[in-house]
Amino acid sequence: MSRVPGALWRNLLAIQVYGANTGVGKTVASTLLAKHFAQRPEKWKVSYTKPVSTGPEDEEDERYLRRYASGVAVSTLFKYDEAVSPHLAAARSRRSIPSDDKVIQALYSHLQEDARLFSEQSSKRGGFTMVETAGGVLSPGPSGTPQADLYRPLRLPVLLVGDHRLGGISSTISAVESLLLRGYDIDAVVCFDDKGKYENFGYLGPYFEKQQIPAFRLPWIPDVEGRPIEEERAMMREYYDRSCTHSEVARTAEELLNRRDKRLDNLNSMAHRTRKTIWHPFTQHKSIKNDEEILVFDSAYGDYFQAKHTSKSSTSKDTNEPVLHPAFDGSASWWTQGLGHGNPKLSLAAAYAAGRYGHVMFAGATHDPALTLAESLIEGVQNPRLTKVFYSDNGSTAVEVGIKMALRAACKRYGWDGSTEEIGVIGLKGSYHGDTIGAMDASEPCVYNKKVDWYRGRGYWFDFPSVKMREGKWIVEAPAGMEEQFGPAKQFGDLNEIFDFDVRGSSQQYKNYIRETLDRLVKTEGKKFGALMMEPLILGAGGMLFVDPLFQRTLVEIVRSYTFSPATPTSTPADPHSWTGLPILFDEVFTGLYRLGRFTAASFLRTQPDISVNAKLLTGGLLPLSVTLASDSIFAAFLGDEKADALLHGHSYTAHPIGCHVANTSLTALERLSKGETWAQYRSSWVPASSAGGEVDSALRNQDERFGAWSMWTKSTVTRLSHHRRVDSVIALGSVLAVALKDEEGAGYTSNAAIGLRDALLNDIGEDGMSIHSRVLGNVLYLMASMTTEPVHLTAVEKALLEKLNKASVA
Amino acid sequence: MSRVPGALWRNLLAIQVYGANTGVGKTVASTLLAKHFAQRPEKWKVSYTKPVSTGPEDEEDERYLRRYASGVAVSTLFKYDEAVSPHLAAARSRRSIPSDDKVIQALYSHLQEDARLFSEQSSKRGGFTMVETAGGVLSPGPSGTPQADLYRPLRLPVLLVGDHRLGGISSTISAVESLLLRGYDIDAVVCFDDKGKYENFGYLGPYFEKQQIPAFRLPWIPDVEGRPIEEERAMMREYYDRSCTHSEVARTAEELLNRRDKRLDNLNSMAHRTRKTIWHPFTQHKSIKNDEEILVFDSAYGDYFQAKHTSKSSTSKDTNEPVLHPAFDGSASWWTQGLGHGNPKLSLAAAYAAGRYGHVMFAGATHDPALTLAESLIEGVQNPRLTKVFYSDNGSTAVEVGIKMALRAACKRYGWDGSTEEIGVIGLKGSYHGDTIGAMDASEPCVYNKKVDWYRGRGYWFDFPSVKMREGKWIVEAPAGMEEQFGPAKQFGDLNEIFDFDVRGSSQQYKNYIRETLDRLVKTEGKKFGALMMEPLILGAGGMLFVDPLFQRTLVEIVRSYTFSPATPTSTPADPHSWTGLPILFDEVFTGLYRLGRFTAASFLRTQPDISVNAKLLTGGLLPLSVTLASDSIFAAFLGDEKADALLHGHSYTAHPIGCHVANTSLTALERLSKGETWAQYRSSWVPASSAGGEVDSALRNQDERFGAWSMWTKSTVTRLSHHRRVDSVIALGSVLAVALKDEEGAGYTSNAAIGLRDALLNDIGEDGMSIHSRVLGNVLYLMASMTTEPVHLTAVEKALLEKLNKASVA
Repeated sequence: MSRVPGALWRNLLAIQVYGANTGVGKTVASTLLAKHFAQRPEKWKVSYTKPVSTGPEDEEDERYLRRYASGVAVSTLFKYDEAVSPHLAAARSRRSIPSDDKVIQALYSHLQEDARLFSEQSSKRGGFTMVETAGGVLSPGPSGTPQADLYRPLRLPVLLVGDHRLGGISSTISAVESLLLRGYDIDAVVCFDDKGKYENFGYLGPYFEKQQIPAFRLPWIPDVEGRPIEEERAMMREYYDRSCTHSEVARTAEELLNRRDKRLDNLNSMAHRTRKTIWHPFTQHKSIKNDEEILVFDSAYGDYFQAKHTSKSSTSKDTNEPVLHPAFDGSASWWTQGLGHGNPKLSLAAAYAAGRYGHVMFAGATHDPALTLAESLIEGVQNPRLTKVFYSDNGSTAVEVGIKMALRAACKRYGWDGSTEEIGVIGLKGSYHGDTIGAMDASEPCVYNKKVDWYRGRGYWFDFPSVKMREGKWIVEAPAGMEEQFGPAKQFGDLNEIFDFDVRGSSQQYKNYIRETLDRLVKTEGKKFGALMMEPLILGAGGMLFVDPLFQRTLVEIVRSYTFSPATPTSTPADPHSWTGLPILFDEVFTGLYRLGRFTAASFLRTQPDISVNAKLLTGGLLPLSVTLASDSIFAAFLGDEKADALLHGHSYTAHPIGCHVANTSLTALERLSKGETWAQYRSSWVPASSAGGEVDSALRNQDERFGAWSMWTKSTVTRLSHHRRVDSVIALGSVLAVALKDEEGAGYTSNAAIGLRDALLNDIGEDGMSIHSRVLGNVLYLMASMTTEPVHLTAVEKALLEKLNKASVA
Repeated sequence: MSRVPGALWRNLLAIQVYGANTGVGKTVASTLLAKHFAQRPEKWKVSYTKPVSTGPEDEEDERYLRRYASGVAVSTLFKYDEAVSPHLAAARSRRSIPSDDKVIQALYSHLQEDARLFSEQSSKRGGFTMVETAGGVLSPGPSGTPQADLYRPLRLPVLLVGDHRLGGISSTISAVESLLLRGYDIDAVVCFDDKGKYENFGYLGPYFEKQQIPAFRLPWIPDVEGRPIEEERAMMREYYDRSCTHSEVARTAEELLNRRDKRLDNLNSMAHRTRKTIWHPFTQHKSIKNDEEILVFDSAYGDYFQAKHTSKSSTSKDTNEPVLHPAFDGSASWWTQGLGHGNPKLSLAAAYAAGRYGHVMFAGATHDPALTLAESLIEGVQNPRLTKVFYSDNGSTAVEVGIKMALRAACKRYGWDGSTEEIGVIGLKGSYHGDTIGAMDASEPCVYNKKVDWYRGRGYWFDFPSVKMREGKWIVEAPAGMEEQFGPAKQFGDLNEIFDFDVRGSSQQYKNYIRETLDRLVKTEGKKFGALMMEPLILGAGGMLFVDPLFQRTLVEIVRSYTFSPATPTSTPADPHSWTGLPILFDEVFTGLYRLGRFTAASFLRTQPDISVNAKLLTGGLLPLSVTLASDSIFAAFLGDEKADALLHGHSYTAHPIGCHVANTSLTALERLSKGETWAQYRSSWVPASSAGGEVDSALRNQDERFGAWSMWTKSTVTRLSHHRRVDSVIALGSVLAVALKDEEGAGYTSNAAIGLRDALLNDIGEDGMSIHSRVLGNVLYLMASMTTEPVHLTAVEKALLEKLNKASVA
């Protein structure tokens, strides 16, 4: 997908003309409007562009415009002789087929040039330009991509020419729906007045009015069938002369102008109105000093937001500069994105489930999307313990469900009364599981919960050694003050060696530390615990902390064999999939579903939790949905004769069909990606060639293991970053890159070390017109790609990151 | 919308033939398939139905079928002479225009008759029937409703005939998208082989394959243009004879059969697979003894689920009985439904936002759907205190946000340290605010939280007098044992008198009770409170308890003037919109957004909370989204120099554009409904004529007040129910009806009194083929309509309810 600004200018009204079908009069409508604008008293500059034209030269739309709308600057960007669909014409032309990116960039440059030219010629209201498509809205472009998908990055406002013929009501509404589901704004529908024959407009006008899409009836085209050429031309000239000032043409033009003005006004007022009305998440509003600090998103596509230039980001206030610019979505929209913004497959999946079900009540009921998703997840996690799926709405609620499950199972087995005894969880320092009180209580006291009045940390959180690359070397390092327990930093040849448990063996130091700590807590202090709860591998909100997988693995092993209730010593169960010690809960809300390159992060640990939580990437980055997977032995703890024994949890939209169906569509796409060329290319720099292959290996417990540990970020950039004098260390895994900057005032969430870099990435727009939106966690700036992001985009981001790091360090 | 079973039989494969446009060969494709099935060795019975035909008799599709596919039973249900779109033909016919319901019922009856006939004729595999539509997928039916909407209740599997002509790629894909967004399954796309001219199939085949929609290339139709009639017919006969056994026709037929078989197999296995994999919300799984207890939903539309018959519900195992039946969604899908299932406007709105944005990160950013929704809500609540909107994902999370807001504001003003001091909330007994721990802690101990190990009730919950109709009279009654505090039951002339605070004046008894209780808690026991938290008017999960509005109003008044911290006496603030006493939090998750007939339930109390929470109906019943609205004085409590002073809460999908845009679409529709004829009709039986009017009344603080209190359920039925000997009392307000049954073993969540009635409603399918799905809360059976439900459907539900109540009472 291209990186290109949205096609919106202050001094140029650019409109894309789509047809409900071929032969509906797109060129006639374009000619009428071109002529109309050229004749308006404001003295508009007018141009017309046909990005792709097919058919013999003498039938070109370009020529037609020249003939009937003199004074209009006309251009065709790509021409093919044969009068067939562009994809066929391009293929049959024996010339090289232009890529979608080439077409889009050529069109954008052409429009930008118009904006510049019109600005020089400085007409009062600027210019008007039309971009006429070929055939219908989804007729394929040269590469075969349907036009409405091909041109989507520009998201030009649409003038749709409806179909006045028999059957045209249906094709016109369908065309509108296809455009809407790709996120286009339809500024006007026009339809030629067929003088009462089929009266399509009589139906379509009111129909679209209800949808707040303005529709106009254009004057009927003369019937020139069979007339001699000169007579035909005279008739058409007379038609255009007469009709270009027709009231409906004028109303159409006014509507296009009004909508453009409203769009600009809206974009200009949004930041201010937002500050007035919106209470932002995770935001200290006192620190937002002016409207420019609010990012205004017009839309998004692929890896990019289409963001309004702010006074900070805009290098120029020239009216011929584009109003929008593409900003790389470097937080993957808060860790959710999997398949890119504005993905038409996900839109269609959402629409289908909405159309088939809307939402249907799920208690005691079932529907296909929820059942299929549950079965796919159970199959995908490759964990024989996990057999049941509980649905909720987001990571935080799914974690609370998991905690309720684990605590009940533990209390029931050990005969504890949770309503009077304090039952805690065991976790890691720096963990974070969500913002609802129950999820908060499962983390140690930290900045997030410091001022939450009902927060009560319930549990114990272990220190742990962490993985990072520093000065080109992968190391495992103890936190400050814990060198005695964990030993000095260990160095590894490459990332994959850290996961090679066969070579690393077991760590007696880790075992001793964990056992001694548990003994102190349980035996000496008499504390009770109901779960071991961890984000496997990377603690996200805690600052992208990469935990030594051997430590997490060891912790699970020991907890599973440890006796937490003296009355009930832990022994090997009859059912090998029963939980022992404590239920193990993995919070894979952030780390799961390919974020780190694999279906589960648990597979990196070669460990199988009893409860597993997924959210964020579950719907490919479209809408909230979460699942808590559990084992039979957890499930059994809730079986009883009383209703009160059950898990009495359930949100109204539990297993909403839209979310489930989108998730099914997304998981299928992600699975395909995991076997595809692009990921193989990413893997190749990280993984020894022998193990980068994708062949199924029956010896592996989890098939994702065959890919090793790898990242979408290039090894060379990660290495360069790790050598930078401003950088303390770097981590990269899957689509995640995190750079910990040196901070003399100490690391942590309150550090400002990374703010300057973040602002530079956002506000210093490069020559390529791109900015990068990123988020920081204290001294850590992280970047996260979508799972579909292509190397060319990441390379540009890596280049910008290295540049800004150097620049910012000079300042 | 019609109440009709989904068109699925075991012995009849019914297919709807749609065309990508008019003139694409629907009838030729139908003829080919009809002939194919008739000639198959299994000796299929074959029929063909044209529900609506336009054009002169000798051009009828029916005749065409008779001519070329002898042995096929052909029928046309509605005929018009003029060869134009059915809506025009019907209008011009000067005959009465059949309603959508009439067309649907006629078609369903006809298909059911085919199923019966074919069963009698007992062919091996049963019958095959085609229902051929007119024109394109969205060509209007006789009433003007687009066909794909008109026929949607039957949700017949679709055979789409693609467009082989120039432009046909676009119109075919668009037609598919229009069908999918209405929830149709497209079992096959066929396209005539144009022998290399435009090669549409060459594109469409692989395109649809990626979408898992099978596509087939049918043999080209002979060019009979200009041939004499006899020659034409001979050519066509030869074509059909030759082509009906063509391999692609056979593959199409196999695909249709396979898909039908898979659909039936899936429906048959779903309950069992669900029991294996799904952990249901609020469900004691031990009590589910067999697969039949799981409701299997094929789909839903309007007010109805299309549910699979279970052995309990099915009166017959005959293969000619429909597999599905419409079940009235009597819990409004867990209180969420506003605009009916499968509403194409909401589907399209969801798709548009998905196409324009996907999800975009919201921290420090803004986008149009979120901003527009926030502004609409602020305007809609007509509460000058509420100025800020915080987004989250569901009622429970939004309540937690509200609690964090209120507690912080109170602790900050009163100098309390919430991390060491216990700060509670004040609420009502029987309240319920959600399933996450923080929301749970805000309710008194009850069955829902009894076995939640981390639950700690934090606060005090008042008794309250409640409203109900008993034996035809509206009364306000004290709970058992509280008669001394609240006085004897009071009787009212009608429901609206209960809300007439001008007449009722203030209640000294209420004031005394509240003040004395607060004095005991605060002054004597030294307890600290941070919020008054209530569901206004109706406590939903607590058992549909209708609180005396005067009591809630009095409680708010007293809390606002009460001194909760002796160090900071409460006085009248300079800003009249500042909170005093305690922040007042209204949980309108269930009661708000027209569920009770008004935009807010607060307007019934003529009280303005400082914090208000909405969810459920917010998206019209499509997907999860919630908001917490707050006042400036609450917002100000989070302003500070440290990030930790901010409200550090925010889910990844905060303000997801799909939810916000769907909510905007839904609120617009609901507002229109509130001013429309149907609601006026509902109101008329409840509200004195003088006050039922909808004129804006400048004297009213809240414009919804002009409609009084009213219900979609008829006053006469409510009255009859209240007289029933098995009924203790009834409440009705807005779309909610709740019937409290007498239970000798006591009321409450664990009562089984209502189970029998619920099961009778679900399993005893009436002569009209309808069942009713309802939920019970202990001894209370409630029914809830969508806000679009029409009187005819509610009348049928009321009738069934009265009948089953009588029957079940005999048993």
